[in-house]
Amino acid sequence: MAGTDKQQDMLAEGPAIILVEPQLGENIGMVARAMANFGLAELRLVAPRDGWPNEKARASASRADHVIDAATVYETPSEAVADLNFVLATTARPRDNFKPVRGPVEAASDLRSRFAGGQKTGIMFGRERWGLTNEEVALADEIVTFPVNPAFASLNIAQAVLLMSYEWIKTGDQAVTPPEQALAPAQKLHIESLMGYLDNVLDERGYFRTEDKKPKMMENLRALFTRPGFTVEELAVLRGVLTSLEKFSPRNPRGSGAPER
Amino acid sequence: MAGTDKQQDMLAEGPAIILVEPQLGENIGMVARAMANFGLAELRLVAPRDGWPNEKARASASRADHVIDAATVYETPSEAVADLNFVLATTARPRDNFKPVRGPVEAASDLRSRFAGGQKTGIMFGRERWGLTNEEVALADEIVTFPVNPAFASLNIAQAVLLMSYEWIKTGDQAVTPPEQALAPAQKLHIESLMGYLDNVLDERGYFRTEDKKPKMMENLRALFTRPGFTVEELAVLRGVLTSLEKFSPRNPRGSGAPER
Repeated sequence: MAGTDKQQDMLAEGPAIILVEPQLGENIGMVARAMANFGLAELRLVAPRDGWPNEKARASASRADHVIDAATVYETPSEAVADLNFVLATTARPRDNFKPVRGPVEAASDLRSRFAGGQKTGIMFGRERWGLTNEEVALADEIVTFPVNPAFASLNIAQAVLLMSYEWIKTGDQAVTPPEQALAPAQKLHIESLMGYLDNVLDERGYFRTEDKKPKMMENLRALFTRPGFTVEELAVLRGVLTSLEKFSPRNPRGSGAPER
Repeated sequence: MAGTDKQQDMLAEGPAIILVEPQLGENIGMVARAMANFGLAELRLVAPRDGWPNEKARASASRADHVIDAATVYETPSEAVADLNFVLATTARPRDNFKPVRGPVEAASDLRSRFAGGQKTGIMFGRERWGLTNEEVALADEIVTFPVNPAFASLNIAQAVLLMSYEWIKTGDQAVTPPEQALAPAQKLHIESLMGYLDNVLDERGYFRTEDKKPKMMENLRALFTRPGFTVEELAVLRGVLTSLEKFSPRNPRGSGAPER
Protein backbone atom coordinates (compact mmCIF):
# COMPACT_ATOMS: atom_id res chain seq x y z
CA MET A 1 0.00 0.00 0.00
CA ALA A 2 2.71 2.40 -0.99
CA GLY A 3 1.71 6.00 -1.34
CA THR A 4 -1.00 5.81 1.27
CA ASP A 5 -0.97 8.21 4.14
CA LYS A 6 -2.03 7.26 7.58
CA GLN A 7 -5.35 9.00 7.56
CA GLN A 8 -6.47 7.36 4.36
CA ASP A 9 -5.56 3.99 5.78
CA MET A 10 -8.10 4.51 8.50
CA LEU A 11 -10.78 2.77 6.49
CA ALA A 12 -9.07 0.56 4.00
CA GLU A 13 -9.83 -3.00 4.77
CA GLY A 14 -12.40 -5.41 3.50
CA PRO A 15 -13.07 -7.35 0.33
CA ALA A 16 -10.87 -6.95 -2.73
CA ILE A 17 -12.64 -5.48 -5.75
CA ILE A 18 -11.78 -7.51 -8.86
CA LEU A 19 -12.48 -6.02 -12.30
CA VAL A 20 -12.35 -8.54 -15.12
CA GLU A 21 -11.07 -7.06 -18.40
CA PRO A 22 -12.19 -3.48 -17.74
CA GLN A 23 -12.09 -1.47 -20.95
CA LEU A 24 -12.22 2.20 -20.06
CA GLY A 25 -9.68 3.85 -17.78
CA GLU A 26 -12.41 6.28 -16.74
CA ASN A 27 -14.42 3.41 -15.31
CA ILE A 28 -11.47 2.06 -13.38
CA GLY A 29 -10.97 5.52 -11.91
CA MET A 30 -14.62 5.82 -10.97
CA VAL A 31 -14.40 2.41 -9.32
CA ALA A 32 -11.40 3.56 -7.27
CA ARG A 33 -13.29 6.66 -6.22
CA ALA A 34 -16.34 4.65 -5.21
CA MET A 35 -14.16 2.27 -3.20
CA ALA A 36 -12.34 5.09 -1.41
CA ASN A 37 -15.61 6.75 -0.46
CA PHE A 38 -16.62 3.67 1.44
CA GLY A 39 -13.31 2.60 2.84
CA LEU A 40 -12.17 -0.10 0.44
CA ALA A 41 -8.67 0.01 -0.98
CA GLU A 42 -7.71 -3.27 -2.61
CA LEU A 43 -8.30 -3.14 -6.37
CA ARG A 44 -7.37 -6.06 -8.62
CA LEU A 45 -7.43 -5.74 -12.40
CA VAL A 46 -7.60 -8.71 -14.72
CA ALA A 47 -6.14 -7.91 -18.14
CA PRO A 48 -7.23 -4.27 -18.39
CA ARG A 49 -7.66 -3.52 -22.09
CA ASP A 50 -5.49 -0.41 -22.17
CA GLY A 51 -2.77 -1.72 -19.90
CA TRP A 52 -1.68 -0.44 -16.52
CA PRO A 53 -0.94 2.13 -15.18
CA ASN A 54 -3.54 4.20 -16.98
CA GLU A 55 -3.56 7.97 -16.66
CA LYS A 56 -7.26 8.22 -17.50
CA ALA A 57 -7.98 6.02 -14.53
CA ARG A 58 -6.01 8.28 -12.25
CA ALA A 59 -7.67 11.40 -13.63
CA SER A 60 -11.17 10.11 -13.00
CA ALA A 61 -10.34 8.67 -9.58
CA SER A 62 -10.77 12.12 -8.06
CA ARG A 63 -7.68 11.80 -5.85
CA ALA A 64 -8.30 8.23 -4.75
CA ASP A 65 -4.62 7.81 -5.55
CA HIS A 66 -4.01 5.33 -2.77
CA VAL A 67 -6.37 2.88 -4.49
CA ILE A 68 -4.89 3.47 -7.95
CA ASP A 69 -1.31 3.16 -6.69
CA ALA A 70 -1.99 -0.09 -4.88
CA ALA A 71 -3.91 -1.74 -7.73
CA THR A 72 -2.51 -5.06 -8.88
CA VAL A 73 -2.80 -6.66 -12.31
CA TYR A 74 -3.42 -10.31 -13.17
CA GLU A 75 -3.55 -12.19 -16.42
CA THR A 76 -6.53 -14.37 -15.58
CA PRO A 77 -9.48 -14.22 -13.18
CA SER A 78 -8.30 -17.46 -11.69
CA GLU A 79 -4.98 -15.88 -10.67
CA ALA A 80 -6.77 -12.82 -9.31
CA VAL A 81 -8.75 -14.87 -6.81
CA ALA A 82 -6.14 -17.53 -6.04
CA ASP A 83 -5.37 -16.34 -2.50
CA LEU A 84 -8.98 -15.61 -1.51
CA ASN A 85 -11.14 -17.78 0.69
CA PHE A 86 -14.48 -16.54 -0.51
CA VAL A 87 -15.48 -14.84 -3.76
CA LEU A 88 -18.70 -13.20 -4.91
CA ALA A 89 -19.54 -12.72 -8.58
CA THR A 90 -21.84 -9.88 -9.58
CA THR A 91 -24.26 -10.60 -12.39
CA ALA A 92 -27.16 -8.72 -13.94
CA ARG A 93 -29.40 -11.70 -13.41
CA PRO A 94 -29.23 -15.10 -11.75
CA ARG A 95 -27.51 -17.77 -13.86
CA ASP A 96 -28.30 -21.36 -14.24
CA ASN A 97 -25.30 -22.68 -12.40
CA PHE A 98 -26.44 -23.77 -9.00
CA LYS A 99 -24.81 -21.03 -7.00
CA PRO A 100 -26.61 -19.24 -4.18
CA VAL A 101 -27.87 -15.82 -5.23
CA ARG A 102 -27.75 -13.01 -2.66
CA GLY A 103 -28.90 -9.42 -2.51
CA PRO A 104 -26.31 -6.75 -1.69
CA VAL A 105 -27.35 -6.36 1.95
CA GLU A 106 -27.16 -10.04 2.74
CA ALA A 107 -23.93 -10.40 0.77
CA ALA A 108 -22.25 -7.50 2.58
CA SER A 109 -23.30 -8.80 5.94
CA ASP A 110 -21.82 -12.18 5.11
CA LEU A 111 -18.58 -10.56 3.91
CA ARG A 112 -18.35 -8.67 7.20
CA SER A 113 -18.73 -11.88 9.20
CA ARG A 114 -16.09 -13.61 7.14
CA PHE A 115 -13.80 -10.60 7.51
CA ALA A 116 -14.25 -10.74 11.27
CA GLY A 117 -13.35 -14.42 11.05
CA GLY A 118 -10.09 -13.69 9.25
CA GLN A 119 -11.09 -14.81 5.76
CA LYS A 120 -9.83 -13.06 2.63
CA THR A 121 -12.72 -12.16 0.37
CA GLY A 122 -13.31 -10.54 -3.00
CA ILE A 123 -16.06 -9.34 -5.29
CA MET A 124 -15.75 -9.85 -9.06
CA PHE A 125 -17.23 -7.44 -11.59
CA GLY A 126 -17.42 -8.16 -15.30
CA ARG A 127 -16.74 -6.25 -18.48
CA GLU A 128 -18.62 -3.07 -19.30
CA ARG A 129 -20.67 -4.58 -22.11
CA TRP A 130 -21.33 -8.16 -21.19
CA GLY A 131 -20.28 -8.89 -17.66
CA LEU A 132 -18.69 -12.15 -16.59
CA THR A 133 -18.56 -15.38 -18.55
CA ASN A 134 -20.11 -18.48 -17.04
CA GLU A 135 -16.60 -19.83 -16.56
CA GLU A 136 -15.68 -16.77 -14.54
CA VAL A 137 -18.83 -16.95 -12.45
CA ALA A 138 -17.93 -20.56 -11.76
CA LEU A 139 -14.82 -19.36 -9.92
CA ALA A 140 -17.00 -17.70 -7.32
CA ASP A 141 -18.76 -19.12 -4.31
CA GLU A 142 -21.93 -17.09 -4.59
CA ILE A 143 -23.65 -14.60 -6.86
CA VAL A 144 -24.81 -11.07 -6.03
CA THR A 145 -27.50 -9.34 -8.05
CA PHE A 146 -28.91 -5.86 -7.56
CA PRO A 147 -32.59 -5.06 -7.11
CA VAL A 148 -32.95 -3.00 -10.27
CA ASN A 149 -35.99 -1.90 -12.23
CA PRO A 150 -36.68 -4.85 -14.53
CA ALA A 151 -37.76 -2.43 -17.23
CA PHE A 152 -34.47 -0.52 -17.10
CA ALA A 153 -31.49 -2.45 -15.84
CA SER A 154 -28.37 -0.55 -16.81
CA LEU A 155 -25.88 -0.38 -13.96
CA ASN A 156 -22.33 0.26 -15.02
CA ILE A 157 -19.40 -1.28 -13.17
CA ALA A 158 -18.61 1.86 -11.19
CA GLN A 159 -22.22 2.02 -9.99
CA ALA A 160 -22.23 -1.66 -9.06
CA VAL A 161 -18.96 -1.25 -7.16
CA LEU A 162 -20.38 1.83 -5.45
CA LEU A 163 -23.41 -0.10 -4.19
CA MET A 164 -21.39 -3.02 -2.86
CA SER A 165 -18.83 -0.70 -1.24
CA TYR A 166 -21.65 1.28 0.33
CA GLU A 167 -23.29 -1.86 1.71
CA TRP A 168 -19.90 -2.90 3.04
CA ILE A 169 -19.38 0.30 5.05
CA LYS A 170 -22.95 0.07 6.34
CA THR A 171 -22.12 -3.25 7.97
CA GLY A 172 -19.25 -1.62 9.85
CA ASP A 173 -21.35 -1.05 12.92
CA GLN A 174 -23.43 -4.19 12.71
CA ALA A 175 -23.20 -6.56 15.61
CA VAL A 176 -20.85 -9.01 13.98
CA THR A 177 -22.13 -12.50 14.43
CA PRO A 178 -19.36 -14.64 15.82
CA PRO A 179 -17.72 -16.53 12.98
CA GLU A 180 -19.24 -19.94 12.62
CA GLN A 181 -17.38 -22.90 14.01
CA ALA A 182 -16.87 -24.15 10.47
CA LEU A 183 -13.34 -23.62 9.25
CA ALA A 184 -12.52 -21.07 6.58
CA PRO A 185 -12.97 -22.22 2.99
CA ALA A 186 -9.73 -23.06 1.24
CA GLN A 187 -8.08 -20.42 -0.89
CA LYS A 188 -9.10 -20.57 -4.53
CA LEU A 189 -5.70 -21.83 -5.60
CA HIS A 190 -6.49 -25.13 -3.91
CA ILE A 191 -9.72 -25.44 -5.87
CA GLU A 192 -7.83 -24.56 -9.04
CA SER A 193 -5.27 -27.20 -8.31
CA LEU A 194 -8.05 -29.73 -7.94
CA MET A 195 -9.59 -28.58 -11.21
CA GLY A 196 -6.32 -28.94 -13.04
CA TYR A 197 -5.97 -32.41 -11.68
CA LEU A 198 -9.50 -33.38 -12.69
CA ASP A 199 -9.01 -31.93 -16.13
CA ASN A 200 -6.02 -34.18 -16.65
CA VAL A 201 -7.27 -37.40 -15.23
CA LEU A 202 -10.75 -37.12 -16.71
CA ASP A 203 -9.52 -36.01 -20.10
CA GLU A 204 -7.25 -38.98 -20.46
CA ARG A 205 -10.19 -41.19 -19.59
CA GLY A 206 -12.45 -39.77 -22.29
CA TYR A 207 -14.78 -38.31 -19.70
CA PHE A 208 -15.48 -35.19 -21.76
CA ARG A 209 -16.40 -37.13 -24.91
CA THR A 210 -16.11 -34.17 -27.32
CA GLU A 211 -13.98 -31.05 -27.00
CA ASP A 212 -16.96 -28.71 -27.38
CA LYS A 213 -18.73 -30.24 -24.40
CA LYS A 214 -15.69 -29.92 -22.17
CA PRO A 215 -15.93 -26.26 -21.09
CA LYS A 216 -19.48 -26.64 -19.82
CA MET A 217 -18.65 -29.89 -18.07
CA MET A 218 -15.62 -28.35 -16.40
CA GLU A 219 -17.75 -25.39 -15.36
CA ASN A 220 -20.24 -27.74 -13.74
CA LEU A 221 -17.46 -29.56 -11.93
CA ARG A 222 -16.03 -26.30 -10.67
CA ALA A 223 -19.45 -25.26 -9.42
CA LEU A 224 -19.84 -28.60 -7.71
CA PHE A 225 -16.57 -28.36 -5.83
CA THR A 226 -16.83 -24.64 -5.07
CA ARG A 227 -20.29 -24.58 -3.62
CA PRO A 228 -19.66 -26.35 -0.32
CA GLY A 229 -16.85 -24.01 0.67
CA PHE A 230 -14.49 -26.92 1.35
CA THR A 231 -11.62 -26.34 3.74
CA VAL A 232 -8.06 -27.16 2.78
CA GLU A 233 -8.30 -30.32 4.86
CA GLU A 234 -11.49 -31.40 3.14
CA LEU A 235 -9.96 -30.79 -0.26
CA ALA A 236 -7.00 -32.94 0.73
CA VAL A 237 -9.31 -35.79 1.67
CA LEU A 238 -11.24 -35.35 -1.58
CA ARG A 239 -8.04 -35.35 -3.56
CA GLY A 240 -7.04 -38.56 -1.83
CA VAL A 241 -10.29 -40.22 -2.87
CA LEU A 242 -9.90 -39.12 -6.46
CA THR A 243 -6.27 -40.15 -6.63
CA SER A 244 -7.18 -43.52 -5.25
CA LEU A 245 -9.74 -43.98 -8.01
CA GLU A 246 -7.27 -42.76 -10.55
CA LYS A 247 -4.31 -44.86 -9.61
CA PHE A 248 -5.68 -48.07 -8.26
CA SER A 249 -8.28 -50.67 -9.12
CA PRO A 250 -9.78 -53.68 -7.36
CA ARG A 251 -7.30 -55.80 -9.18
CA ASN A 252 -4.35 -53.56 -8.36
CA PRO A 253 -5.12 -52.02 -4.99
CA ARG A 254 -2.82 -49.68 -3.21
CA GLY A 255 0.22 -51.53 -1.94
CA SER A 256 -0.15 -54.34 -4.44
CA GLY A 257 2.60 -53.10 -6.70
CA ALA A 258 2.68 -50.68 -9.59
CA PRO A 259 -0.38 -48.53 -10.26
CA GLU A 260 -2.59 -49.71 -13.11
CA ARG A 261 -1.45 -47.27 -15.73
CA MET B 1 -44.58 11.56 -19.18
CA ALA B 2 -44.57 11.77 -22.93
CA GLY B 3 -42.26 9.40 -24.69
CA THR B 4 -42.56 6.71 -22.08
CA ASP B 5 -43.64 3.28 -23.06
CA LYS B 6 -45.82 1.17 -20.87
CA GLN B 7 -43.13 -1.15 -19.66
CA GLN B 8 -40.90 1.64 -18.48
CA ASP B 9 -43.77 3.11 -16.53
CA MET B 10 -43.93 -0.04 -14.50
CA LEU B 11 -41.62 1.38 -11.88
CA ALA B 12 -41.77 5.13 -12.07
CA GLU B 13 -43.23 6.49 -8.91
CA GLY B 14 -41.75 7.83 -5.76
CA PRO B 15 -39.87 10.93 -4.68
CA ALA B 16 -38.93 13.63 -7.14
CA ILE B 17 -35.19 14.11 -7.60
CA ILE B 18 -34.33 17.82 -7.49
CA LEU B 19 -30.94 18.98 -8.77
CA VAL B 20 -30.04 22.52 -7.75
CA GLU B 21 -27.98 24.33 -10.39
CA PRO B 22 -26.34 21.27 -11.91
CA GLN B 23 -23.41 22.24 -14.07
CA LEU B 24 -22.50 19.34 -16.29
CA GLY B 25 -24.97 17.75 -18.68
CA GLU B 26 -23.10 14.48 -18.22
CA ASN B 27 -23.98 14.49 -14.55
CA ILE B 28 -27.65 15.14 -15.26
CA GLY B 29 -27.62 12.21 -17.65
CA MET B 30 -25.94 9.96 -15.10
CA VAL B 31 -28.54 11.00 -12.56
CA ALA B 32 -31.34 10.06 -14.98
CA ARG B 33 -29.71 6.70 -15.57
CA ALA B 34 -29.36 6.06 -11.85
CA MET B 35 -33.01 6.98 -11.30
CA ALA B 36 -34.26 4.73 -14.09
CA ASN B 37 -32.29 1.79 -12.74
CA PHE B 38 -34.21 2.02 -9.51
CA GLY B 39 -37.62 2.98 -10.76
CA LEU B 40 -37.67 6.74 -10.23
CA ALA B 41 -38.76 9.00 -13.05
CA GLU B 42 -39.47 12.52 -11.83
CA LEU B 43 -36.46 14.78 -12.34
CA ARG B 44 -36.60 18.48 -11.48
CA LEU B 45 -33.82 20.85 -12.49
CA VAL B 46 -33.25 24.20 -10.85
CA ALA B 47 -31.47 26.62 -13.18
CA PRO B 48 -29.20 24.12 -14.96
CA ARG B 49 -26.10 26.02 -15.99
CA ASP B 50 -26.13 25.00 -19.65
CA GLY B 51 -29.87 25.33 -20.15
CA TRP B 52 -32.35 22.65 -21.02
CA PRO B 53 -32.75 20.45 -23.01
CA ASN B 54 -29.12 19.39 -23.03
CA GLU B 55 -27.86 16.84 -25.53
CA LYS B 56 -24.93 15.83 -23.33
CA ALA B 57 -27.41 14.87 -20.65
CA ARG B 58 -29.29 12.67 -23.06
CA ALA B 59 -26.12 11.06 -24.35
CA SER B 60 -24.94 10.07 -20.90
CA ALA B 61 -28.38 8.91 -19.74
CA SER B 62 -27.84 5.59 -21.48
CA ARG B 63 -31.38 5.48 -22.90
CA ALA B 64 -33.16 6.68 -19.78
CA ASP B 65 -34.99 8.92 -22.23
CA HIS B 66 -38.26 8.79 -20.34
CA VAL B 67 -36.58 10.55 -17.40
CA ILE B 68 -34.84 13.12 -19.60
CA ASP B 69 -38.02 13.86 -21.59
CA ALA B 70 -40.13 14.34 -18.49
CA ALA B 71 -37.62 16.55 -16.65
CA THR B 72 -38.97 19.93 -15.60
CA VAL B 73 -37.04 23.16 -15.06
CA TYR B 74 -37.50 25.75 -12.31
CA GLU B 75 -35.89 29.07 -11.66
CA THR B 76 -35.52 28.68 -7.90
CA PRO B 77 -35.34 25.80 -5.42
CA SER B 78 -38.39 27.24 -3.72
CA GLU B 79 -40.47 26.85 -6.88
CA ALA B 80 -39.13 23.34 -7.43
CA VAL B 81 -40.47 22.13 -4.10
CA ALA B 82 -43.63 24.24 -3.92
CA ASP B 83 -46.09 21.37 -4.49
CA LEU B 84 -44.31 18.85 -2.26
CA ASN B 85 -45.38 17.83 1.21
CA PHE B 86 -42.02 16.60 2.42
CA VAL B 87 -38.51 17.38 1.25
CA LEU B 88 -35.12 15.92 2.11
CA ALA B 89 -31.88 17.80 1.54
CA THR B 90 -28.69 15.83 0.97
CA THR B 91 -25.55 17.26 2.52
CA ALA B 92 -22.00 16.04 2.91
CA ARG B 93 -22.16 16.64 6.63
CA PRO B 94 -24.75 17.64 9.20
CA ARG B 95 -25.38 21.38 9.37
CA ASP B 96 -26.03 23.56 12.30
CA ASN B 97 -29.64 24.29 11.52
CA PHE B 98 -31.74 22.20 13.83
CA LYS B 99 -33.04 19.76 11.24
CA PRO B 100 -33.20 16.05 11.89
CA VAL B 101 -30.39 14.17 10.16
CA ARG B 102 -31.14 10.73 8.72
CA GLY B 103 -29.16 7.96 7.12
CA PRO B 104 -30.24 6.76 3.66
CA VAL B 105 -31.99 3.63 4.92
CA GLU B 106 -34.10 5.43 7.47
CA ALA B 107 -34.83 8.27 5.04
CA ALA B 108 -35.96 5.90 2.29
CA SER B 109 -38.18 3.99 4.66
CA ASP B 110 -39.83 7.22 5.75
CA LEU B 111 -40.30 8.30 2.13
CA ARG B 112 -41.98 4.99 1.40
CA SER B 113 -44.40 5.42 4.31
CA ARG B 114 -45.24 8.94 3.20
CA PHE B 115 -45.69 7.73 -0.37
CA ALA B 116 -48.11 5.07 0.86
CA GLY B 117 -49.94 7.82 2.71
CA GLY B 118 -50.38 9.88 -0.44
CA GLN B 119 -47.77 12.55 0.24
CA LYS B 120 -45.67 14.11 -2.51
CA THR B 121 -42.00 13.98 -1.62
CA GLY B 122 -38.68 15.06 -3.05
CA ILE B 123 -34.93 14.83 -2.46
CA MET B 124 -32.71 17.83 -3.15
CA PHE B 125 -29.12 17.52 -4.34
CA GLY B 126 -26.72 20.45 -4.52
CA ARG B 127 -24.17 21.70 -7.01
CA GLU B 128 -21.23 19.57 -8.04
CA ARG B 129 -18.64 21.66 -6.23
CA TRP B 130 -20.27 22.94 -3.12
CA GLY B 131 -23.65 21.38 -2.56
CA LEU B 132 -26.63 23.27 -1.20
CA THR B 133 -26.59 26.65 0.51
CA ASN B 134 -27.91 26.92 4.02
CA GLU B 135 -30.91 28.78 2.62
CA GLU B 136 -31.68 25.88 0.33
CA VAL B 137 -31.28 23.34 3.10
CA ALA B 138 -33.72 25.44 5.11
CA LEU B 139 -36.42 24.64 2.52
CA ALA B 140 -36.25 20.98 3.48
CA ASP B 141 -37.82 19.11 6.35
CA GLU B 142 -34.91 16.83 7.09
CA ILE B 143 -31.33 16.17 6.06
CA VAL B 144 -29.82 13.00 4.62
CA THR B 145 -26.12 12.24 4.85
CA PHE B 146 -24.25 9.22 3.57
CA PRO B 147 -22.02 6.98 5.67
CA VAL B 148 -18.81 7.74 3.83
CA ASN B 149 -15.18 7.22 4.75
CA PRO B 150 -14.30 10.33 6.75
CA ALA B 151 -10.82 10.28 5.24
CA PHE B 152 -12.16 10.31 1.68
CA ALA B 153 -15.62 11.77 1.20
CA SER B 154 -16.08 12.52 -2.47
CA LEU B 155 -19.50 11.41 -3.68
CA ASN B 156 -20.65 13.14 -6.84
CA ILE B 157 -24.31 13.95 -7.40
CA ALA B 158 -24.94 10.98 -9.67
CA GLN B 159 -23.53 8.66 -7.01
CA ALA B 160 -25.61 10.27 -4.28
CA VAL B 161 -28.75 9.99 -6.42
CA LEU B 162 -27.86 6.38 -7.16
CA LEU B 163 -27.66 5.52 -3.47
CA MET B 164 -30.95 7.20 -2.57
CA SER B 165 -32.72 5.64 -5.57
CA TYR B 166 -31.33 2.25 -4.64
CA GLU B 167 -32.51 2.62 -1.05
CA TRP B 168 -35.91 3.67 -2.39
CA ILE B 169 -36.36 0.52 -4.50
CA LYS B 170 -35.20 -1.61 -1.59
CA THR B 171 -38.13 -0.37 0.47
CA GLY B 172 -40.54 -1.54 -2.23
CA ASP B 173 -41.20 -4.81 -0.50
CA GLN B 174 -41.03 -3.53 3.04
CA ALA B 175 -44.10 -3.97 5.16
CA VAL B 176 -45.37 -0.44 4.85
CA THR B 177 -46.26 0.93 8.22
CA PRO B 178 -49.73 2.34 8.08
CA PRO B 179 -49.49 6.10 7.60
CA GLU B 180 -49.66 7.86 10.91
CA GLN B 181 -52.91 9.45 11.93
CA ALA B 182 -51.22 12.82 11.69
CA LEU B 183 -52.27 14.75 8.63
CA ALA B 184 -49.91 15.33 5.75
CA PRO B 185 -47.60 18.31 6.04
CA ALA B 186 -48.68 21.30 3.99
CA GLN B 187 -47.19 21.77 0.57
CA LYS B 188 -44.11 23.95 0.57
CA LEU B 189 -45.91 26.79 -1.16
CA HIS B 190 -47.90 27.37 2.02
CA ILE B 191 -44.70 27.66 4.03
CA GLU B 192 -43.31 30.02 1.43
CA SER B 193 -46.42 32.14 1.63
CA LEU B 194 -45.98 32.38 5.38
CA MET B 195 -42.32 33.29 4.93
CA GLY B 196 -43.21 36.06 2.49
CA TYR B 197 -45.73 37.40 4.94
CA LEU B 198 -43.24 37.31 7.83
CA ASP B 199 -40.59 38.98 5.73
CA ASN B 200 -42.95 41.89 5.09
CA VAL B 201 -44.42 42.42 8.50
CA LEU B 202 -41.18 41.90 10.36
CA ASP B 203 -39.15 44.02 7.99
CA GLU B 204 -41.45 46.97 8.39
CA ARG B 205 -41.13 46.60 12.16
CA GLY B 206 -37.35 46.69 12.11
CA TYR B 207 -37.12 43.09 13.32
CA PHE B 208 -34.07 42.35 11.22
CA ARG B 209 -32.09 45.36 12.48
CA THR B 210 -29.44 45.30 9.71
CA GLU B 211 -29.73 43.98 6.17
CA ASP B 212 -26.73 41.68 6.53
CA LYS B 213 -28.32 39.87 9.47
CA LYS B 214 -31.58 39.29 7.64
CA PRO B 215 -30.72 36.20 5.53
CA LYS B 216 -29.59 34.19 8.53
CA MET B 217 -32.58 35.31 10.59
CA MET B 218 -34.99 34.37 7.80
CA GLU B 219 -33.25 31.02 7.48
CA ASN B 220 -33.76 30.39 11.16
CA LEU B 221 -37.42 31.32 10.87
CA ARG B 222 -37.88 29.00 7.93
CA ALA B 223 -36.25 26.19 9.88
CA LEU B 224 -38.52 26.93 12.81
CA PHE B 225 -41.71 26.74 10.78
CA THR B 226 -40.63 23.83 8.59
CA ARG B 227 -39.52 21.45 11.29
CA PRO B 228 -42.88 20.52 12.80
CA GLY B 229 -44.36 19.49 9.45
CA PHE B 230 -47.36 21.75 9.96
CA THR B 231 -50.55 20.87 8.11
CA VAL B 232 -52.37 23.42 5.98
CA GLU B 233 -54.91 23.86 8.77
CA GLU B 234 -52.19 24.44 11.34
CA LEU B 235 -50.53 27.00 9.12
CA ALA B 236 -53.87 28.79 8.76
CA VAL B 237 -54.23 29.00 12.53
CA LEU B 238 -50.63 30.22 12.85
CA ARG B 239 -51.22 32.84 10.21
CA GLY B 240 -54.29 33.99 12.09
CA VAL B 241 -52.27 34.48 15.26
CA LEU B 242 -49.59 36.43 13.44
CA THR B 243 -52.08 38.58 11.60
CA SER B 244 -53.81 39.34 14.85
CA LEU B 245 -50.55 40.55 16.34
CA GLU B 246 -49.81 42.53 13.25
CA LYS B 247 -53.11 44.29 12.82
CA PHE B 248 -54.50 44.75 16.27
CA SER B 249 -53.41 45.95 19.69
CA PRO B 250 -54.90 45.92 23.16
CA ARG B 251 -56.02 49.45 22.54
CA ASN B 252 -57.48 48.65 19.13
CA PRO B 253 -58.71 45.08 19.31
CA ARG B 254 -60.37 43.31 16.47
CA GLY B 255 -63.84 44.73 15.88
CA SER B 256 -63.02 48.03 17.57
CA GLY B 257 -62.68 49.90 14.31
CA ALA B 258 -59.79 50.48 11.97
CA PRO B 259 -56.61 48.45 12.51
CA GLU B 260 -53.83 50.30 14.22
CA ARG B 261 -51.72 51.05 11.18
